[in-house]
Amino acid sequence: MKAKSPSLSEILKTEVVCPNDTNPMGLLLGGKLVQWMDIAAAICAQSHAEKICVTASIDNVNFKNSARVGDVITIKARITRAFNTSMEIFVETHSKNVLSRENHLINEAYFTFVALDDHGHVTSVAPVQPRTKKEKEQYNHALKRKKNKTAIKK
Amino acid sequence: MKAKSPSLSEILKTEVVCPNDTNPMGLLLGGKLVQWMDIAAAICAQSHAEKICVTASIDNVNFKNSARVGDVITIKARITRAFNTSMEIFVETHSKNVLSRENHLINEAYFTFVALDDHGHVTSVAPVQPRTKKEKEQYNHALKRKKNKTAIKK
Amino acid sequence: MKAKSPSLSEILKTEVVCPNDTNPMGLLLGGKLVQWMDIAAAICAQSHAEKICVTASIDNVNFKNSARVGDVITIKARITRAFNTSMEIFVETHSKNVLSRENHLINEAYFTFVALDDHGHVTSVAPVQPRTKKEKEQYNHALKRKKNKTAIKK
Amino acid sequence: MKAKSPSLSEILKTEVVCPNDTNPMGLLLGGKLVQWMDIAAAICAQSHAEKICVTASIDNVNFKNSARVGDVITIKARITRAFNTSMEIFVETHSKNVLSRENHLINEAYFTFVALDDHGHVTSVAPVQPRTKKEKEQYNHALKRKKNKTAIKK
Amino acid sequence: MKAKSPSLSEILKTEVVCPNDTNPMGLLLGGKLVQWMDIAAAICAQSHAEKICVTASIDNVNFKNSARVGDVITIKARITRAFNTSMEIFVETHSKNVLSRENHLINEAYFTFVALDDHGHVTSVAPVQPRTKKEKEQYNHALKRKKNKTAIKK
Amino acid sequence: MKAKSPSLSEILKTEVVCPNDTNPMGLLLGGKLVQWMDIAAAICAQSHAEKICVTASIDNVNFKNSARVGDVITIKARITRAFNTSMEIFVETHSKNVLSRENHLINEAYFTFVALDDHGHVTSVAPVQPRTKKEKEQYNHALKRKKNKTAIKK
Repeated sequence: MKAKSPSLSEILKTEVVCPNDTNPMGLLLGGKLVQWMDIAAAICAQSHAEKICVTASIDNVNFKNSARVGDVITIKARITRAFNTSMEIFVETHSKNVLSRENHLINEAYFTFVALDDHGHVTSVAPVQPRTKKEKEQYNHALKRKKNKTAIKK
Repeated sequence: MKAKSPSLSEILKTEVVCPNDTNPMGLLLGGKLVQWMDIAAAICAQSHAEKICVTASIDNVNFKNSARVGDVITIKARITRAFNTSMEIFVETHSKNVLSRENHLINEAYFTFVALDDHGHVTSVAPVQPRTKKEKEQYNHALKRKKNKTAIKK
Repeated sequence: MKAKSPSLSEILKTEVVCPNDTNPMGLLLGGKLVQWMDIAAAICAQSHAEKICVTASIDNVNFKNSARVGDVITIKARITRAFNTSMEIFVETHSKNVLSRENHLINEAYFTFVALDDHGHVTSVAPVQPRTKKEKEQYNHALKRKKNKTAIKK
Repeated sequence: MKAKSPSLSEILKTEVVCPNDTNPMGLLLGGKLVQWMDIAAAICAQSHAEKICVTASIDNVNFKNSARVGDVITIKARITRAFNTSMEIFVETHSKNVLSRENHLINEAYFTFVALDDHGHVTSVAPVQPRTKKEKEQYNHALKRKKNKTAIKK
Repeated sequence: MKAKSPSLSEILKTEVVCPNDTNPMGLLLGGKLVQWMDIAAAICAQSHAEKICVTASIDNVNFKNSARVGDVITIKARITRAFNTSMEIFVETHSKNVLSRENHLINEAYFTFVALDDHGHVTSVAPVQPRTKKEKEQYNHALKRKKNKTAIKK
Repeated sequence: MKAKSPSLSEILKTEVVCPNDTNPMGLLLGGKLVQWMDIAAAICAQSHAEKICVTASIDNVNFKNSARVGDVITIKARITRAFNTSMEIFVETHSKNVLSRENHLINEAYFTFVALDDHGHVTSVAPVQPRTKKEKEQYNHALKRKKNKTAIKK
């Protein structure tokens, strides 16, 4: 399969924090945000693979700031590297307050997806061809993260 | 207030059609799509106005194609023109099938929003400064649409 | 097919505004209301056509008043006229406050639906036989609205 | 307080069964239907009492037929009698299939609501003045049901 | 079929009250709680029957206390007795406030479920073998409740 | 503050997979499951801390099996160790098919929560006193995971 650039499958998803998405202090629930991130990451993976993809793992989700009811959440998902049948997707989310215009990084995380064929079996996907400096950096680090993860499991 | 370019408040929102969003034939419900479009348009209006905005009218929503469960819906909202306290937002939506990669225009529509101050009263917003040829065209047509609308009401 | 009276397919739908249906000022979101109206209009169209129907267009949704959390929303959908395969449905919504008993018109809109056969193709529906003075008026105006709409598109 | 006729607070609520409202056999979940019925009954109680009302008990919910995805559910709520601070609301639900036009009674149930004042304390409500024969019958039986219920508790 | 102990199919379901689950006074809606209870009861019935089960009736739902946004709701469902094709499930719910640590009984109710075979027809289920004193008490009372219910219907 | 046993705050949450929780192949979405896990973990953390808690990080979510529409999901959350103001919560989820009775581990993950005081500031929590062998093992490993995580960040 021909290698594809990360920019071809980059996804932008915009949400508004609703009352049901928050805890009694009015702060956005971490799990709700991860659900939005997972959907953005799945669309990104499927756009690269041109196949149905399922979440294999979620790692290093660190919440640096909180968001509140009415805040606009922007979720950006970009593929960093493909490893035969799996893909690492980098997701970062920001929140913006309508009135104060303040813009904060909420969190970043790495999602791993696998592609499925028509029978639901794992299948191979196109390699990633990084172009920009940042894409190349993330491409190289993806391998380290994969090895680190395997090492921790042992 | 200083005029602002439409590109500064442009919004991209990505959704996936879920079973509950469809009729018994598996086709995306028109009203559900308008709900997503209204949220994208509201974020766009609020981003331009830097104030809470509410929907004043929705016009000319014409469904040209249908979407199905699993399709990826891309919603793009861009301000065309501001008229003192109101803003016209142009919204267009496309659907993409994961496997066939087919991309269809579903619909286009014009939303009008008004900005509210802290007391909930209508308040003025910054003018729009169109830059590109298409932005200028939509800016000019916005006035015609406004006059047409008033004429039909009479 | 035998012509049918609008009253046979008239639909009444009652909802209560929940926190998630509102913006940070506690006002009902326009898009959420249109979603409820679309469901009421679809039930009305399907009841007249005795077939699955899909939204073809939504026009002239003008919000005259706002509603708040806890308000009771009453949505009334009535067919005005059928044009071979399409039907125009008139929808009007009111809100009522539990304590103040105030009753406000929120908006009115015209929805157009088309009927589908078992293969998902557009199919013809029964004509509408207006009875009351108001039904006859809406029946006649439906043709004007259809022509106006076509004229604007050109 | 002046007695009020049941017809003044009668509520009609129309819903469509969505995939998420059903079990894996595609049958409408009993609890989901009771949730819709509770909302209709609460609107009816609040309309009679002109106060915020909360559910005190739900009795004799017997499911006689099932409904499926796409069926139209009609819920009718009508007050039968008021007992100083509590109200008995009779709710009946029917389902209709779009294509077969078959109309079935799904269930009937009695809900009891109490009215709350501004401080959240139980408060008295207007009596019910039944007019039709059926309303009078339900008014008389309401007292029997109340006594029966108290007897069973002992 | 071999008799099974109630403890084998006992279900614990934990929920948190969200804004959309409450009325404008911030109190948990009765119908929403019944929906959660119905799901817990259905899982319990299906676990005992090892078949898809549907709600046949809901009785004696008496709300003794209310719950508020942020409260933790614990729902416990346990089978009391099986009658050839039907099962009585006892459900009790408690609420706990995070800060005050207060724990209240909200309500108790009896749900009746019937088991369905692959063709959607009612089918027989395993008997219940009560072990503890409380289980034996509920087993005996289940018959009385069944007779009472039939008596009231007449 | 007095140390508390993990068993005092252990939480069991039971869910049923609905159509909207799945992808077009009918497989439970990873992000939806994490949302349920986050709620269970938050209830567990708040039960231990007796304070409102927010998600600080989510790690090592590895999906070993998939679940399908109608499957019963059991989520168990247990605190492993508290570090002054943060708590590590271990969450494991299983799925059970109603008919086949097959029971699978879906995934395990570690969530970190911080406790907030009335002003929304981070505040200290009670230590954890492990009792069983498994609790002691998880208590010791929690420190290693914390150090590992800090090391990876550098």
